[in-house]
Amino acid sequence: MKRVRPLVQKLRAYVPGEQSRIKGLIKLNTNENPYPPSPKVLAAVKAAVDGRLRLYPNPTAQVLREKLAKLHGCSPENIIVGNGCDDILAMACRAFVEPLTAPAKPLDAPAPARSVVQFFDPSYSLYPVLAAIHGAHAQAVPLADDFALPSLAELKKGGQWDFRAALTLVTTPNAPSGRGYSTAELERLCRAQKGVILLDETYVDFAEENAMALALKYPQVLVARTFSKAYSLCFQRVGYCVGHPELIGGLHKIRDSYNVNGLGQVAAAATLDDQPYYQANFRRIGATRERLSHGLTALGFRVCPSQTNFIFAKPSVLSAERWLQKLRDRKILVRWFGYPSVRDYLRISIGTDAEADALLKTVRRILGECRG
Amino acid sequence: MKRVRPLVQKLRAYVPGEQSRIKGLIKLNTNENPYPPSPKVLAAVKAAVDGRLRLYPNPTAQVLREKLAKLHGCSPENIIVGNGCDDILAMACRAFVEPLTAPAKPLDAPAPARSVVQFFDPSYSLYPVLAAIHGAHAQAVPLADDFALPSLAELKKGGQWDFRAALTLVTTPNAPSGRGYSTAELERLCRAQKGVILLDETYVDFAEENAMALALKYPQVLVARTFSKAYSLCFQRVGYCVGHPELIGGLHKIRDSYNVNGLGQVAAAATLDDQPYYQANFRRIGATRERLSHGLTALGFRVCPSQTNFIFAKPSVLSAERWLQKLRDRKILVRWFGYPSVRDYLRISIGTDAEADALLKTVRRILGECRG
Repeated sequence: MKRVRPLVQKLRAYVPGEQSRIKGLIKLNTNENPYPPSPKVLAAVKAAVDGRLRLYPNPTAQVLREKLAKLHGCSPENIIVGNGCDDILAMACRAFVEPLTAPAKPLDAPAPARSVVQFFDPSYSLYPVLAAIHGAHAQAVPLADDFALPSLAELKKGGQWDFRAALTLVTTPNAPSGRGYSTAELERLCRAQKGVILLDETYVDFAEENAMALALKYPQVLVARTFSKAYSLCFQRVGYCVGHPELIGGLHKIRDSYNVNGLGQVAAAATLDDQPYYQANFRRIGATRERLSHGLTALGFRVCPSQTNFIFAKPSVLSAERWLQKLRDRKILVRWFGYPSVRDYLRISIGTDAEADALLKTVRRILGECRG
Repeated sequence: MKRVRPLVQKLRAYVPGEQSRIKGLIKLNTNENPYPPSPKVLAAVKAAVDGRLRLYPNPTAQVLREKLAKLHGCSPENIIVGNGCDDILAMACRAFVEPLTAPAKPLDAPAPARSVVQFFDPSYSLYPVLAAIHGAHAQAVPLADDFALPSLAELKKGGQWDFRAALTLVTTPNAPSGRGYSTAELERLCRAQKGVILLDETYVDFAEENAMALALKYPQVLVARTFSKAYSLCFQRVGYCVGHPELIGGLHKIRDSYNVNGLGQVAAAATLDDQPYYQANFRRIGATRERLSHGLTALGFRVCPSQTNFIFAKPSVLSAERWLQKLRDRKILVRWFGYPSVRDYLRISIGTDAEADALLKTVRRILGECRG
């Protein structure tokens, strides 16, 4: 008897970026912030490590939701907090998308809109995995040149885009390219979608604009954010999602009762109370990003303009896959995705200035060896 | 356009026990441990609150799984760690149970075994909610008198039990009754099940026996445990599940990539290194449990024998629901479940000795008022 569902047996699990224990490694592969959380956040978390650990955390992260509501000018009913943003994305699939049933139609018939999880290619590589886990149809539609958002006319003309898809996931700014999108163009897309459209703003704190207003304007629009990257709290697993109470209420219904750990709630709430520290970090990371971009461009890389805490760079001389290996041999970890639309690129997280210098030095050395 | 799935719209969300902020409240409603984590655990967590919070935690909780493997005499491949035990239970539904599709058969036809989540009534009230969220068929089969496990003959005779159910969930010791089951009777049940059977040992540290050996003996048996209750870590969200690598591997495939927060991993690992502290707590809680049971029995309550950190008690004079309210008015919170099989009972978590004394005193006063 097969006890694991056939759907699950067929799955290929999502492979997260390597979390290496190698000493002295320069880790630029998973877009973590190079700077620690603010001293006030660390103090708040330490102060909470006491007898209260025996108690359940607040099931709805009430205090945090109240603070977030104040920040975004909405009500706690517009907000759900997740065990990281991945929890939010997985819940969105479960709440809004019907799993496919055995094909009643010919195999090449289009999937019904109610079962479609739609996203651009490239974007966050977890999306098709979440669709597969849920038994939904993953619909990947190419971005335009230089990872631009296609216009509505282009999407209609292309014929692949589904304006009635149950769930559309848009990484904005885009990952892995780092390209930012204007709120105006995102709004045009949102208005055209009939199903739920979730703007995944994981990297938005490093960008010029954000689209939070759209989540509070349109009943089909959600905006997801995370404390992981910009706010240096990957370890703690706290993300959230803002939108119409009807959609947010649907997510709450399928949420694990105590999905957000208590110390994560404490850390996130304390983070919102110390914005100046993080604003200074964003500026520092932005400056390092520009310096690293110029440095790599001077060395022959084609670097996409970035509004995130990473850059997407097309190397010269060797293939991206070879660069991945050569850098790893020299204890620098970057990310390479093997799928067709991006296999010529490396994704490099923005670390400290010293790490940027070390990377540039190592790239220069590798180039020297190739030419020597 | 309806954007939330009809299945989700129809759901009634699980209602966790009240997490009240009322000052001076005696909280005996959610089975939390009255004693804090060990000083060594608190020190280990505090020591980890530093710059590392910016980094992702280990995605598979590798260090913790290695320690657990050593504890249970198995391999890390036999273990998955969850964001609390609820995460494990939800994953088990998704990995092993096919959602029901639109009825092809008459509405009163039995659900196909591949879509059945089966459990005893009463047991953990989350199970039917998880089945409903997944779109599976929830099959509740009554326990025997005094919450005993029915024999195989009784289950066969009853005709409701499905020996081929995709997933069977057994709370052992039982909640909310507190009754313990012998490994021998659990083994008979496990051997008879063709589908996956998960023994939910949330409260097993307070019991006379545990059934971990069955998870390592039979390919269809899983045992789930948690650090929440016995190990005073509700706030941190760490549970785990042991079983055959084929089942555990299926769960890993659908797990959120970073489902267990880093400080939770640190706390759980430190807990395993300080067993004597917790063994002493278990003895203390056991002693308070016996004292409270005798005290309530003397006051006319019918108290079920308990192998957990709570007791299930049938009050006299007033209905259980009235007792809930009268105790709450006097700042003592206990739990009452409104569903038919248990509506005559109160579930009372074992607190400190002082809390037991306060409860007994308050019960005496309420009885006095009723009689006065």
